[in-house]
Amino acid sequence: MNYETSLTGLGPAAAAVREDRLWCRLEQLGRIGATPAGGVHRLPLSTEDGLARRQILQWAAARRFACSIDDIGNIFIRRAGLDADAPPVASGSHVDSQPNGGRFDGAYGVLAALEALEAIDDSGVATRRPIEVVIWTAEEGGARYEQGCMGSQVYGNPSKLPRMLALKDSSGESVGQCLVRLKSELPPLEQRSLEQPIFAYIEAHIEQGPVLEEAGKSIGIVTGIQGCRYFQIDVVGEAAHAGTTPRSRRRDALLSACSIVKGLEKLFHDTNDVCRFTVGSFEVQPNAAMVVPERVKFTIDFRHTQESIIQELGDRVADVCEGNAGRCKVTVTETRRASPTEFTGLVTEKLASVAVQHGIAYMRIPSGAGHDARYVAERCPSGMIFIPCLRGISHSPDESVTSEDAAWGARITADALVSLSQC
Amino acid sequence: MNYETSLTGLGPAAAAVREDRLWCRLEQLGRIGATPAGGVHRLPLSTEDGLARRQILQWAAARRFACSIDDIGNIFIRRAGLDADAPPVASGSHVDSQPNGGRFDGAYGVLAALEALEAIDDSGVATRRPIEVVIWTAEEGGARYEQGCMGSQVYGNPSKLPRMLALKDSSGESVGQCLVRLKSELPPLEQRSLEQPIFAYIEAHIEQGPVLEEAGKSIGIVTGIQGCRYFQIDVVGEAAHAGTTPRSRRRDALLSACSIVKGLEKLFHDTNDVCRFTVGSFEVQPNAAMVVPERVKFTIDFRHTQESIIQELGDRVADVCEGNAGRCKVTVTETRRASPTEFTGLVTEKLASVAVQHGIAYMRIPSGAGHDARYVAERCPSGMIFIPCLRGISHSPDESVTSEDAAWGARITADALVSLSQC
Repeated sequence: MNYETSLTGLGPAAAAVREDRLWCRLEQLGRIGATPAGGVHRLPLSTEDGLARRQILQWAAARRFACSIDDIGNIFIRRAGLDADAPPVASGSHVDSQPNGGRFDGAYGVLAALEALEAIDDSGVATRRPIEVVIWTAEEGGARYEQGCMGSQVYGNPSKLPRMLALKDSSGESVGQCLVRLKSELPPLEQRSLEQPIFAYIEAHIEQGPVLEEAGKSIGIVTGIQGCRYFQIDVVGEAAHAGTTPRSRRRDALLSACSIVKGLEKLFHDTNDVCRFTVGSFEVQPNAAMVVPERVKFTIDFRHTQESIIQELGDRVADVCEGNAGRCKVTVTETRRASPTEFTGLVTEKLASVAVQHGIAYMRIPSGAGHDARYVAERCPSGMIFIPCLRGISHSPDESVTSEDAAWGARITADALVSLSQC
Repeated sequence: MNYETSLTGLGPAAAAVREDRLWCRLEQLGRIGATPAGGVHRLPLSTEDGLARRQILQWAAARRFACSIDDIGNIFIRRAGLDADAPPVASGSHVDSQPNGGRFDGAYGVLAALEALEAIDDSGVATRRPIEVVIWTAEEGGARYEQGCMGSQVYGNPSKLPRMLALKDSSGESVGQCLVRLKSELPPLEQRSLEQPIFAYIEAHIEQGPVLEEAGKSIGIVTGIQGCRYFQIDVVGEAAHAGTTPRSRRRDALLSACSIVKGLEKLFHDTNDVCRFTVGSFEVQPNAAMVVPERVKFTIDFRHTQESIIQELGDRVADVCEGNAGRCKVTVTETRRASPTEFTGLVTEKLASVAVQHGIAYMRIPSGAGHDARYVAERCPSGMIFIPCLRGISHSPDESVTSEDAAWGARITADALVSLSQC
């Protein structure tokens, strides 16, 4: 059967997608690290992260798919192709979560890819390239370390490996130490080189925003991911007695920090509302009602779709901080930077043509959140599809999707993987 | 001997003050709850607070002074007077501390009073009125509960007793429960009625500011304590994903809180620098770098010497909060209010005349910090003396005084107590 030319509506792989199997697995995976409110607490490289990986490897083993792991703990589940030497087509996401996060962020992309792989297998389609499911390590790394998307970052640029392995959490445990423990809790896996290429990559994910739901679309084809610059700001003043110290003698770190935040708010204000500026973490020392604050540490999360604005506004952060610091001393540290990613070409066009063939309601949509696909795109053509999530809520136990939308995402993934695997 | 007419320089009580005994006891008391940096961590109603009280009661017992305790845990150590029914003259302060606080704040006032009492006893002076040392409960109550000066507040207004006993710390333990435990760890003490009057009250304390040191004076006679109004501000917005949520859809509690703080800074700005405005505690939820803050709770500590300004500016706090809250909801709760206290009349004039007789370098000085004397003054004529502290540092392990200044404070207290006890 010539798959490429037989497509009318669903291809055989998409037709073999089983909505009930996918939904049941989303429920099963959601029980690992489940929180009372209905979410999951499955921190990167935690015991729960390991248990989730173990569960997925069990499902893979039942199908006799070959499984491997690389030096940063990314896991690959492969269905063989006719050409064993051809770089594979891959799809995946992550299974770790934010603290008390939702059960679909990441997990959906991994299980949609696994459902696609099983559906391809069930349909009996022979593909030229191998097809793989990937579980990227520590996409939510920022919840525990100072970096997110750790596994895909290292895949995108293997020279980052030593720096990632050395990162420590607040208890002093390093990523390298956690990985040794994690591997010991998994079944034996073939070792995979970080250098091994992927031909093309698809990531399915919940939107984490309200656009698809409001537009009444089941599928978003992602046009790109915003660029971002993250900063840590440290404002140092002097502790003093709230009752006895005149204003003229104070170096109040909180008043300076508030001035800086207001200055930054002005810097990042745009009339078209494309800039994303967030001060999410803000810590005051000693944080006692009757003591003038000695020190404030806060974060800046700045994102934009245009590299020129990422560059220009990001470069002005230090000046705005210093210009508003008053008598306090301010230190600005840039902790992470990523350029905007555009998803164009092969993968995105394949996803769009499959969506058209399926007759599903879809739209093109930019991604506000960062995803592993950003870094995978450094190595191979990549693209993403979004499915709607209830009221755009994410990183919350209230995260919710419908079984129907979840299945549509798996169907598009399945047919696009097959199509790409014949290239 | 007619004490009143024999004074030339030091009276016999002041002459009997032993600088070495006082200093040695400051060192001994400073070992209870000692911190590595040289301060003390002796939270209100903690085990350490109890140990400090026990130590002082041992010194009192060695002199056979009668000891009693009231319903809020205030402890009274009495040297009998000729007229057993006359209300006593008293002096004291507190032995609890701020977290990692200094070893002189409070402790000095109690030990200066005890030194004065022993010196009076050593000198053999017979007084008409009894003389008492008082340890007030939980002056630093704000470090654990939502109220400070708990013991003196209840003495000043006994109707506050049930509310104070019901206050709970963050672990859920009530003041009443702590008091039961505290009393069980002390030797048996006579029960004292909260209604029992005091004729006049003197409190010695470290200045907690730099004025005396800079002016080269050993003693400050306190003219009054600023009035204060404390508020708790609760700003509620909505948590949202930092990457996906447009500014127009955000209700960012941190940006609103910063605007409110800047609005308050303007409200409390005075050209003569008499207003004291501090936002000391500021808590952000969920406090994660990539989540738009849902909620900010912060405190306002506002103090001023003039009641009319306390009234006027304090009454505008809610308007300024609401006017700067943007799309967030703000709740303003006033947690405590005290009018300015003026120390005039009997006690202050007695302290000044003793200082003149001793030939000590003194000055009149207002108090920026609150003290137990504020509340005792609601029941009886009260006054305070300050001794210098190094560079004005307080609520810190670096708190420091000289043995000489400490002894002068005890000498003035001793002679003033004797003089007042003959009234």
